[in-house]
Amino acid sequence: MIPHEAFAVDPWCLREHAMLEEHHAQAESLFALSNGHIGWRGNLDEGEPHALPGSYLNGVHEIRPLPHAESAYGYPESGQTVINVTNGKVIRLLVDDEPLDLRYGDTTRHERVLDFRAGVLRREVDWVSPAGQTVRVRSTRLVSFTQRAIAAICYEVRAVDDPARVVVQSELIANEAMPSQSADPRSAAVLDRPLVAQEHAAFGARVGLVHRVDRSGLGVAAAMDHVVLAPAGLETHAESSPDLGRVTWATLLQPGRTLRLVKFVAYGWSSRRSVPALRDQADAALTTAVQTGWDGLLAEQRAFLDRFWSDADVEVEGDAEVQQAVRFGLYHVLQAGARAERRAIPAKGLTGPGYDGHSFWDSEMFVQPVLTYTFPEAVAHALRWRHDTLPLALDRAAQLGMSGAAFPWRTITGAECSGYWPAGTAAFHINAGIAAAVTRYVWASGDEKFARTTGIELLVQTARLWRSLGHHDNEGGFSIDGVTGPDEYSALADNNVYTNLMAKKNLLAAYEYVRRFPDRARELSVDEEEAAAWRDAALAVVVPYDEVLGVHPQAEGFTRHQAWDFAATPEHGYPLMLHNPYFDLYRKQVCKQADLVLAIMQCPEEFEQAQKARDFAYYERITVRDSSLSACVQAVVAAEVGQLELAHDYLAEAALMDIADLEHNTSDGLHIASLAGAWTALVAGFGGLRQDGSCPCLAPRLPPALTRITFCLRLGGGRLSVRIRPQRAEYLYEGERSLAITHHGRRVLLDPGGKVELPIPPCPPQEHLEQPPGRAPRPRSARGGE
Amino acid sequence: MIPHEAFAVDPWCLREHAMLEEHHAQAESLFALSNGHIGWRGNLDEGEPHALPGSYLNGVHEIRPLPHAESAYGYPESGQTVINVTNGKVIRLLVDDEPLDLRYGDTTRHERVLDFRAGVLRREVDWVSPAGQTVRVRSTRLVSFTQRAIAAICYEVRAVDDPARVVVQSELIANEAMPSQSADPRSAAVLDRPLVAQEHAAFGARVGLVHRVDRSGLGVAAAMDHVVLAPAGLETHAESSPDLGRVTWATLLQPGRTLRLVKFVAYGWSSRRSVPALRDQADAALTTAVQTGWDGLLAEQRAFLDRFWSDADVEVEGDAEVQQAVRFGLYHVLQAGARAERRAIPAKGLTGPGYDGHSFWDSEMFVQPVLTYTFPEAVAHALRWRHDTLPLALDRAAQLGMSGAAFPWRTITGAECSGYWPAGTAAFHINAGIAAAVTRYVWASGDEKFARTTGIELLVQTARLWRSLGHHDNEGGFSIDGVTGPDEYSALADNNVYTNLMAKKNLLAAYEYVRRFPDRARELSVDEEEAAAWRDAALAVVVPYDEVLGVHPQAEGFTRHQAWDFAATPEHGYPLMLHNPYFDLYRKQVCKQADLVLAIMQCPEEFEQAQKARDFAYYERITVRDSSLSACVQAVVAAEVGQLELAHDYLAEAALMDIADLEHNTSDGLHIASLAGAWTALVAGFGGLRQDGSCPCLAPRLPPALTRITFCLRLGGGRLSVRIRPQRAEYLYEGERSLAITHHGRRVLLDPGGKVELPIPPCPPQEHLEQPPGRAPRPRSARGGE
Repeated sequence: MIPHEAFAVDPWCLREHAMLEEHHAQAESLFALSNGHIGWRGNLDEGEPHALPGSYLNGVHEIRPLPHAESAYGYPESGQTVINVTNGKVIRLLVDDEPLDLRYGDTTRHERVLDFRAGVLRREVDWVSPAGQTVRVRSTRLVSFTQRAIAAICYEVRAVDDPARVVVQSELIANEAMPSQSADPRSAAVLDRPLVAQEHAAFGARVGLVHRVDRSGLGVAAAMDHVVLAPAGLETHAESSPDLGRVTWATLLQPGRTLRLVKFVAYGWSSRRSVPALRDQADAALTTAVQTGWDGLLAEQRAFLDRFWSDADVEVEGDAEVQQAVRFGLYHVLQAGARAERRAIPAKGLTGPGYDGHSFWDSEMFVQPVLTYTFPEAVAHALRWRHDTLPLALDRAAQLGMSGAAFPWRTITGAECSGYWPAGTAAFHINAGIAAAVTRYVWASGDEKFARTTGIELLVQTARLWRSLGHHDNEGGFSIDGVTGPDEYSALADNNVYTNLMAKKNLLAAYEYVRRFPDRARELSVDEEEAAAWRDAALAVVVPYDEVLGVHPQAEGFTRHQAWDFAATPEHGYPLMLHNPYFDLYRKQVCKQADLVLAIMQCPEEFEQAQKARDFAYYERITVRDSSLSACVQAVVAAEVGQLELAHDYLAEAALMDIADLEHNTSDGLHIASLAGAWTALVAGFGGLRQDGSCPCLAPRLPPALTRITFCLRLGGGRLSVRIRPQRAEYLYEGERSLAITHHGRRVLLDPGGKVELPIPPCPPQEHLEQPPGRAPRPRSARGGE
Repeated sequence: MIPHEAFAVDPWCLREHAMLEEHHAQAESLFALSNGHIGWRGNLDEGEPHALPGSYLNGVHEIRPLPHAESAYGYPESGQTVINVTNGKVIRLLVDDEPLDLRYGDTTRHERVLDFRAGVLRREVDWVSPAGQTVRVRSTRLVSFTQRAIAAICYEVRAVDDPARVVVQSELIANEAMPSQSADPRSAAVLDRPLVAQEHAAFGARVGLVHRVDRSGLGVAAAMDHVVLAPAGLETHAESSPDLGRVTWATLLQPGRTLRLVKFVAYGWSSRRSVPALRDQADAALTTAVQTGWDGLLAEQRAFLDRFWSDADVEVEGDAEVQQAVRFGLYHVLQAGARAERRAIPAKGLTGPGYDGHSFWDSEMFVQPVLTYTFPEAVAHALRWRHDTLPLALDRAAQLGMSGAAFPWRTITGAECSGYWPAGTAAFHINAGIAAAVTRYVWASGDEKFARTTGIELLVQTARLWRSLGHHDNEGGFSIDGVTGPDEYSALADNNVYTNLMAKKNLLAAYEYVRRFPDRARELSVDEEEAAAWRDAALAVVVPYDEVLGVHPQAEGFTRHQAWDFAATPEHGYPLMLHNPYFDLYRKQVCKQADLVLAIMQCPEEFEQAQKARDFAYYERITVRDSSLSACVQAVVAAEVGQLELAHDYLAEAALMDIADLEHNTSDGLHIASLAGAWTALVAGFGGLRQDGSCPCLAPRLPPALTRITFCLRLGGGRLSVRIRPQRAEYLYEGERSLAITHHGRRVLLDPGGKVELPIPPCPPQEHLEQPPGRAPRPRSARGGE
């Protein structure tokens, strides 16, 4: 599954030791660097060959029309799409008049390493030019976690055998020509030359460019400065034009001598600030970076990551690929969210243009759960971003005839950008996901200030939405009709179980928060009647059940629908949505992704244990996992119902999503939610973590192939370390007060600093479960792990 | 309701006696002339002022892209739209250098009359030019029912008080500048200059132009010739250029003298024939028309209509407006279908560009029922057109993963042009509608040749579709899930009652036909097993029922949905779809149009009489009639359940749809289905006509305000005349054999030529039914009829 010919298994880095044309675009995504504010794809220093050049700034987008063959009330008329901003990555090299270009000459050594602890991308190339001249290039690139406006590159070129006349050109390039994207609707729309030049200047080795995005009007400044160390005389020349900034150095390198260039790049952007203000903002950031220096930036980066890993590391003994992939995933989750700071966390982070750079429910339901326990600051920021968009969500709800807030299915700025409402607007569950993220974050962090400011308002406005979306039917049940649940092979159904149970949680949480913060409730105009109506609706919520089959239909009527004809579906017939009309998918029993199973994971208290197993077995047979959001959820519930080997298989699928390019679209950017899901599969799956009631519940249990898992959770201001072995689990809480947990249902009090070791009850043997033909996950045990 | 200031009530014509700016576009539709092959909107002879110039040829269309904000498998990528072809209507007049233009000078007399018996549009204008010169213009325009390629105009201009120097210009104009259409999705897309000139020629008083439609590639030839009669010396000049043909005459008219011009216009079009072939085709038709002469064309037209009215006239005593409107409607239904001849009958006929000129289910379910009993030749042609498109429908079904044929929801050529699948592709009931049209036509006409050729193939391929669309659920019922029924404020529901019952009829009809024509069954590869599977599915079809409420939900779960909040819906909030998202409409109890009520009308045998009344009362409360297809259906079932005054109100609404411009979009073209529905409201409503089993069933009953209704039906090769008075009904059958009918359930044998008079049982008093607030039809009785 892993393309071993290109990537090596290593616990703390992703290493590429061959440049393969067919992995080019994938590697650009895998080696992307980001801090959540700036994103640089792993394009080569010299710019070409490239698959998809990409430099992104969180929130910088262009507006494009959303065409509708038949328009209707409430359809968004324009969308937003992420754009490739000014490229600050490029450093071109000429060796005796021959440009370094791996398509020519001989590459005798190639290695790229994404180092999860150092937070850098290292590259080593030994290249023999067509004329026979050998040079050795070493570059190290970082996007700073500590100085969010800054990226930097240390670039070294060395003459190996003969004296070499080298020219190095460091560039800022705006409006790069982009390869045309595929017709796949999931890919971003191509936008041709979106940047309109405003100002450019060169001074010394410093160059700056300022642009405006054509239709969105956003201003973008990019600036670069350099520190160069050359063994001999050096000619320097700096220049700027509207779409190009360039500094050039020329020298003669004797064999064994090295030219070393450090390039600092700063970005600034705003929808409001003037061109001079933006220019100055970028220049100021640049000055700080230069002052910090390359070694300083490296040291800050390492310190930042040391802290992160000490809180967040996961160890997996017994499966080296998964060990690597989980750290890779966690590293990219951190990159996506660390410094987003009141901006969205997009589905693909800042690693590619996929999904137009939009943020979905993935953020709250897949990515934020991981950050909540590993880097909670990022969650507070991401939810504050949602809160900042509340005025748009209130307007959208009003436009739809609803109360409260209707957050967008997909967006960059907070405005709904979905062009297909049955799988967009109708997927109201995103609102319950936002509410769940609020309660989860507050529960884990104890951040009361957040709860009484941002948190309560998000809960109240989403509760209002649910109250207006649902109604009491003639049997008194609270029904929510005509909505779309998580499974995108169903739409517009009544009483989707996941939606209803998550709405229930949302309503109850709002009820609880208004009682906790009565003054805030008054400010939000919540009176007793309104709060009581939320509680009553929540307690009456309808959960359909199929008495004949003894399982929960994922929505009303689902289990009565025709079975999908899997026998007639060829292997190349997946993903089904590319070969079948929505019409047919929607009306048959086939799931793109976990839906009822996600309800079991998120609302464990609503299902009896035996029921969970029956439901899980039923949906295993019809879930095809055409969505990357599915495997991690199935892993968690498989583990819960004792299907430990299956859980291991699903964990591996989630973790290897991008390294193995399982959906063949990693080229467009990483699947951040699936990568986050790998952590969740370990921690909520094999660790059994749930937040049920007032204390963390754990129920650890390992699959046969794994001999040890350890992980940490930031909880209640302290850190809970969990070490799981086949027979026993060890807990250590480092915090100011004691922490109560449950271990396999048994309540345990953990005193600060004291280790507790507890036995793991044996797992009863399980029946083998069936997946749709050809859709079972790759069995992990057969491959033998390490 | 009727704009009396412009239109007068007259039993045999529609008369306009004032030109009002605000009625301009509406009048162009009302006064449109067509034979089903050519359509000319009622634009003024002199071309301007106009609201929307329109000359249409059935099937002549342009292709336009169908954009999708998010594309998906099976979406049509291009659509088709009717275009304004070469305008042959224009005759311009200069009076002493002043163009006749009603926007200038004084119009001292204006009258236009659409004469339903003569089949012409007459116009009389007395106009005083700004310089004070008075002329009298009389024109008569026809589109020939007997020579389908021909339209003609007799144009007379007379000097009244003073000698007048007049210049008359008769024109053919291609690529007229069109006013931009509204943003209403129901209006046609504007297409700028779709015609590409191929050839033009002028010779004597004859001019021809040939064009190709840019993207569809269709060839269109238009030619005109003239016969002119002038009292004095006449100068004639003919010319042609790529987009203009023009013949000019100049003369001096003494007071009281008249210049008389007869203009013959011929059209020819083809997707295959060459430019010379098309030119010659138009010229040949023109030669015949000139030979026939104006008086000959008038006489043929009159004879054609005399035959039609003797078979089809409906008399309504007691409501003069409805009398006029029903004849107006019947006349336009004839115009839409008479000579369509293996082309579609579009929703707006050839009267305007509304709905892009597409044909929908209206044709088979609203228009063809009327033509079946009044002009059955047109039905055979329309169904042969469907049959001609069978290859496309088979391909579409295969693309959707279904068997048999899936006919398009909207089309010109037979290819699906729907840009919104939940209210397009998913409305599979159109296929059952086509099947119903086949059985209805064969049943009424006895056309066995059609049955064994075209008919059986349409039935078999649609039955195959239903068999593959449905499935047997775990209780053995045959379910059809996830489809959209007639009501467009619901979508994608399971077991829509109308759809299921119509599918049942379709399956049983196919079963019956393959037994009747076993050789044809073999040719169509239908074996015993397949036929038995149709029958079994039909007999097991699921019809959901709400035991608590004692009514049929229009689809599974419908009656459990939240009630629409009518109290909060302001009067200007209709049509609801322009002010509310589909999302909210779909999930609530509100009907755009009759759906379950249509099932009662079409499948009367499936409902107990008391059940019909309960169901009707239930749906009355939630049906808002935002569709023009609703009132006529409600009229029929209202009459059946004894709500006779209400039926009268609905009849009037259907009949006056366009004359009173009830939906404010008659400007785009007439609502042919609603106009047809007025006939149906009378015949199936107050006449009670049903085709139940082997003989026609009638159950006549008049509402209080009407004193007599008479109508004729072409049945079994003969003609059944029905004369209904308050207490009794009289039947007369003129045919070769006896005809069995039922009268209020009593079987009666009608011998050829013998009158039978039967008493009408009294109607028990009925409760008053409620409609949504503000949505009751205008009460007829309060207005006092005549």
